[in-house]
Amino acid sequence: MATRHRPATDPLADLFAATRQHSLDLAAPLSDADATIQSMPDASPAKWHLAHTTWFFETFVLRDHVPVYAPFDPRYAYLFNSYYDAEGERHARPARGMLSRPSVDEVRAYRMHVDAAVEAALPDLNKAARDLVELGCHHEAQHQELLVTDIVHAFAQNPLEPALWTVSTSPAASVPATAGWIEGPTGRVEVGHAGSGFAFDCEGPRHSVWLHSHTIADRLVTNGDWGAFIADGGYGRPELWLSDGWAWVREDGIGAPLHWQGETSFGPQGRRLRDPNAPVTHISFYEADAYARWAGARLPTEFEWEASAAQLPDAFGQVWQWTSSAFLPYPGYRVADGAVGEYNGKFMSGQMVLRGSSHATPEGTSRITTRNFFPPTARWQFSGLRLAKDL
Amino acid sequence: MATRHRPATDPLADLFAATRQHSLDLAAPLSDADATIQSMPDASPAKWHLAHTTWFFETFVLRDHVPVYAPFDPRYAYLFNSYYDAEGERHARPARGMLSRPSVDEVRAYRMHVDAAVEAALPDLNKAARDLVELGCHHEAQHQELLVTDIVHAFAQNPLEPALWTVSTSPAASVPATAGWIEGPTGRVEVGHAGSGFAFDCEGPRHSVWLHSHTIADRLVTNGDWGAFIADGGYGRPELWLSDGWAWVREDGIGAPLHWQGETSFGPQGRRLRDPNAPVTHISFYEADAYARWAGARLPTEFEWEASAAQLPDAFGQVWQWTSSAFLPYPGYRVADGAVGEYNGKFMSGQMVLRGSSHATPEGTSRITTRNFFPPTARWQFSGLRLAKDL
Amino acid sequence: MATRHRPATDPLADLFAATRQHSLDLAAPLSDADATIQSMPDASPAKWHLAHTTWFFETFVLRDHVPVYAPFDPRYAYLFNSYYDAEGERHARPARGMLSRPSVDEVRAYRMHVDAAVEAALPDLNKAARDLVELGCHHEAQHQELLVTDIVHAFAQNPLEPALWTVSTSPAASVPATAGWIEGPTGRVEVGHAGSGFAFDCEGPRHSVWLHSHTIADRLVTNGDWGAFIADGGYGRPELWLSDGWAWVREDGIGAPLHWQGETSFGPQGRRLRDPNAPVTHISFYEADAYARWAGARLPTEFEWEASAAQLPDAFGQVWQWTSSAFLPYPGYRVADGAVGEYNGKFMSGQMVLRGSSHATPEGTSRITTRNFFPPTARWQFSGLRLAKDL
Amino acid sequence: MATRHRPATDPLADLFAATRQHSLDLAAPLSDADATIQSMPDASPAKWHLAHTTWFFETFVLRDHVPVYAPFDPRYAYLFNSYYDAEGERHARPARGMLSRPSVDEVRAYRMHVDAAVEAALPDLNKAARDLVELGCHHEAQHQELLVTDIVHAFAQNPLEPALWTVSTSPAASVPATAGWIEGPTGRVEVGHAGSGFAFDCEGPRHSVWLHSHTIADRLVTNGDWGAFIADGGYGRPELWLSDGWAWVREDGIGAPLHWQGETSFGPQGRRLRDPNAPVTHISFYEADAYARWAGARLPTEFEWEASAAQLPDAFGQVWQWTSSAFLPYPGYRVADGAVGEYNGKFMSGQMVLRGSSHATPEGTSRITTRNFFPPTARWQFSGLRLAKDL
Repeated sequence: MATRHRPATDPLADLFAATRQHSLDLAAPLSDADATIQSMPDASPAKWHLAHTTWFFETFVLRDHVPVYAPFDPRYAYLFNSYYDAEGERHARPARGMLSRPSVDEVRAYRMHVDAAVEAALPDLNKAARDLVELGCHHEAQHQELLVTDIVHAFAQNPLEPALWTVSTSPAASVPATAGWIEGPTGRVEVGHAGSGFAFDCEGPRHSVWLHSHTIADRLVTNGDWGAFIADGGYGRPELWLSDGWAWVREDGIGAPLHWQGETSFGPQGRRLRDPNAPVTHISFYEADAYARWAGARLPTEFEWEASAAQLPDAFGQVWQWTSSAFLPYPGYRVADGAVGEYNGKFMSGQMVLRGSSHATPEGTSRITTRNFFPPTARWQFSGLRLAKDL
Repeated sequence: MATRHRPATDPLADLFAATRQHSLDLAAPLSDADATIQSMPDASPAKWHLAHTTWFFETFVLRDHVPVYAPFDPRYAYLFNSYYDAEGERHARPARGMLSRPSVDEVRAYRMHVDAAVEAALPDLNKAARDLVELGCHHEAQHQELLVTDIVHAFAQNPLEPALWTVSTSPAASVPATAGWIEGPTGRVEVGHAGSGFAFDCEGPRHSVWLHSHTIADRLVTNGDWGAFIADGGYGRPELWLSDGWAWVREDGIGAPLHWQGETSFGPQGRRLRDPNAPVTHISFYEADAYARWAGARLPTEFEWEASAAQLPDAFGQVWQWTSSAFLPYPGYRVADGAVGEYNGKFMSGQMVLRGSSHATPEGTSRITTRNFFPPTARWQFSGLRLAKDL
Repeated sequence: MATRHRPATDPLADLFAATRQHSLDLAAPLSDADATIQSMPDASPAKWHLAHTTWFFETFVLRDHVPVYAPFDPRYAYLFNSYYDAEGERHARPARGMLSRPSVDEVRAYRMHVDAAVEAALPDLNKAARDLVELGCHHEAQHQELLVTDIVHAFAQNPLEPALWTVSTSPAASVPATAGWIEGPTGRVEVGHAGSGFAFDCEGPRHSVWLHSHTIADRLVTNGDWGAFIADGGYGRPELWLSDGWAWVREDGIGAPLHWQGETSFGPQGRRLRDPNAPVTHISFYEADAYARWAGARLPTEFEWEASAAQLPDAFGQVWQWTSSAFLPYPGYRVADGAVGEYNGKFMSGQMVLRGSSHATPEGTSRITTRNFFPPTARWQFSGLRLAKDL
Repeated sequence: MATRHRPATDPLADLFAATRQHSLDLAAPLSDADATIQSMPDASPAKWHLAHTTWFFETFVLRDHVPVYAPFDPRYAYLFNSYYDAEGERHARPARGMLSRPSVDEVRAYRMHVDAAVEAALPDLNKAARDLVELGCHHEAQHQELLVTDIVHAFAQNPLEPALWTVSTSPAASVPATAGWIEGPTGRVEVGHAGSGFAFDCEGPRHSVWLHSHTIADRLVTNGDWGAFIADGGYGRPELWLSDGWAWVREDGIGAPLHWQGETSFGPQGRRLRDPNAPVTHISFYEADAYARWAGARLPTEFEWEASAAQLPDAFGQVWQWTSSAFLPYPGYRVADGAVGEYNGKFMSGQMVLRGSSHATPEGTSRITTRNFFPPTARWQFSGLRLAKDL
């Protein structure tokens, strides 16, 4: 019966335990009410993130691979499915903020129930099920970052502007004053994920692209840089903007990154004086693109970024970096069968790729091949940019 | 210093204490999250009702009449002003559901702070200030009913359909099977409030109206009656509807009172089997008007209702009753000076009058002259109807 | 066979001929394109007015009372029904501006076809049918005014600001500098239509109302008066406005009557210098109400207006005058059977009554009992006001 | 003075004359009203197309290069600028349908005035100005196709469903019953425009891309094919659709290509029986993408299409073919200076590329490198698809 016992060294069990714990740690400072509210249709309540990530394991691992498993509450499937059409009807996304019940404590109980079941089942799971556990951990890591960005957005709507975390989770102010330029590789280059480590489906297949001569800045654009763009009338000059971006700026009255107010900006620590040397964040693709044009440069393509990532300071752990690439499938990309196949492929329309990771990305969960993606107007993420140029 | 002590028999102090306690009692079963959510712009979070009614006393009584009073939190004026333009800028109504902070416990502390200050000040308050305390109590009674209707609406959005109160606060099933008709007075009739008791400004001045021959039903329209209207295709026959009502029915896909589902309806006790003999509720003015036309009758005017109110069974305590009268000022009506003057007068546009009171109206707070008012599409109130006819 | 010949003196035939001719005269200066465009869902193309008034005769007189009549084009019933649900499906109101075909010349041919058939049938029509012809003429008179207001609104959208008519159809500048006040009758007063002349259904039954002491201004409010209101910050002071009116002012950025620009306004003669002594026009009910409050007065009720109409200078022929009365049924009002019954009754919700008539109202078609009605935000009509006061 | 005379063989003058005449020919069957209406913000009135293309020559050629030129009407610059921010304020796009004046005859006079001036100036124009004349001709060719698609869309809103052209401008029914597959080139391939002929800026620079093994269908997808997709429930199966596409299908109630009704579809000849062997048209990118997934295939990238275009039957002259490529700048792409630079570059966001040309594309104006682009929901163009597959 040795196979029933998880070997002390099962790294998947460790990953699972650490991932599940980290979500609870992030949510620890939140009240039940904090965890319930939803500030816009694109954002979700913290409670929902805690429950949805749990539903993922309950559904794709326990329901599908552990016959004896009994669901914690059969109504939760309706409440906490996000967008998996193959899993049936679900609670409307903009109404997630109506769920004052279950309480955050009930959701924690739900988590414990599922955690225990997954941990008990792990030693006996087959390869397919273990892959789903791994996918679920990476899926949860994504939601951990969203939990942070979503609650920051919600708190920013509250005139009291609550501060969530007293310890710093903001980007460091480490950006040098002027940019140097790193010349990227040209000609045929291999990009995309290959090999044995985990990656999301959209990161592969690994394939060739042809790169043209270009350089990439060795630093991120800073708050100070952005101040110069504003001072130069950047938000009022249509020639700098894509047409849809200009319409958005006019209609929504955009004149600065999200949450800027005078000399301050709002983040996980509440409203703080802005550091001119810190990377700019909370900007949309349209703003990044306009800034680059203003600076006589452009955004890198996602492949230029990937080809030089190893050389790039602050590629990871500061801010996600907008690229000029639309989120499209790689040559030979195939959607997986079943509901899990809805993971990335069906979003390949109307979104732009961001590369790297932010200070809110759980450590070790972003790769050189990771493709984050958001619509060109999204600003509530920790999104910034670095410049590129043709040679 | 005897004047500093409240006489044991000050009825205003009793009213104040009882009113303030009743709000806490109503909110007792709510979690912090329950009290935070807002299901639509027209509804407010329970927490907000608790705080706004407190702000009313803090502002119009304490700030304006008690020089030594220090506000509990100066930021609350911005958060908890409802619509008083004279009181300055305020938090946008549709964003009230973003206030996870202050917590409901902090709001309770706010209430205690203000209650203590009002109680301490009462013995020394002049007539004008005492009138404002009384107004504040009646204002709070209105919000007590809204607290109930708003949380019922919010819970109805939750697929778990929580039940709020185990004790019954629903209308009794006491309606007789067939209606008798009460002939109302004709000719010159006096209506509106006069005399020394409390009334809202819009209930006066007392004045003459001329009534024509008519009768009013001695019973409310029931769920059973409404079922016959539905069975007869009432929601699909344009000739029964006002033009705007018909457009609303088509656009919003209306086919039954709010919260009806099969044989059930949703209310303070959660989803329950519907009693055919109970008064129909959760209907709009448009529905009431169409039903009356279908029944070969009409709605009473608010003055016909008032002139016969003393003879009408179930006039109070069951459901508010839509009338055919628009909410307009009485002859000689004058808005009070200052912010308090914004109480009723500025809403005299686009609303229809309801008379009587519902099972959720705090006891003793509705008068024969009380004018409730809502837009013709409002359905989340405990609103029903009784019929009238020309003779 | 003498009955087959129309007596030379049939006044209904004369009314019909004159009414039908007047529509053509009004439309004479319009190009096919002018007559096709629709500037907003509330307005209709001139071509549509010409055709819809014809459809009215074709349907309710010819189809229902002249068995041998063959419709000009059976598809026109779908195109040119306005809102008669009993007449079946119809072309969506906001899409009326898509009808480049039929051309205005084809519509004129349609008119000739129907006119000939009505004129041939008239001598043999029974009383019911003759009443419908009369109703159709008054219906067409209403559309004649709308044809003017709608095309003025459409031309105002064109940066070229075409002038429609060179002859004056604007109000005269005859308003005295200061207002005198006319004391109205008090106590029981009879209002509403009775007797043998034509009236729309909503003008009756004649009935008693009780009036309280009041006076009405003997002059209309002028452009000059309105300038003083603007100069005094009238559009920026919430205490002057109904709540819905204030929201409308803020949301739509309202700061002057419609079509005002500097010292000019736009009307049937194009853009012209504004006459300070001419009656103000193109104002909404909300503006009229706010102005009255600013002036320390109020709007008259529709019954106060009617009771004094014979004494009121400029009661007719200048601008429609907003009253403080909602458009509601009179006691004993009954909707007529069939589609014609949809004429007025189903609009008795969300609208305010205007009394009098404007310079664009066809002569002799407005009575002392006429009730015009529009939503409280409507401004594209020739709508103004006179003041009233309690005594 | 020989230089003042246009050489009989100036091909630019011939191109100019032929292009300008073709617009008039297309518009010949339209009435003034037909040419005035606008069926949606994305479409423009025919009159506007006629005037805007004229404004292009008047502004960028005559105003900028012919000092003696006097504008036909200085107000037209405001009316007929489309989206050139550098050219100042302009009439709002959704309000183009309000321009009943100038009449289509006045617009024709405007065209004659500008044509005469351009033809007189041509012999003396420098290279830059001649390039702008050429650009203006290709710009006008684009608007000629839009004039057709826009008026077809407008006529489709009219219940009378007018037929515009009696001669056929529809795609031929020439598609073979089953598809063969053409293997495309792999590895490094050169794409994009180079050389001396005309091309729009976005077609260059010519550059290398790396293609992977694939095949492209030798035929277009037909109406018959599409019927099989519908019969198989294609519009009701979320797994076939991109997430945004599925939301669009549900919200807009999409269940067939635009203008399909039973066995018919609506086009330039009015409503006609549908030919199952003709290429399907009036489909969005989302529909094309879902169809391809249903067929076990995918859309080609724009570079796969270009690399095989010479081998592809019906590549041109039938329907534009959606590709899987987002409309993005080529490596090294630079926007031209000045207002002309707003031509294509600023639309490089939120749009997908179509390749080939349609039956409404003026002959000889589409190249193997032409990149047409529309948002993924656009359906009023003559847009279809052909399939591709990975090998």
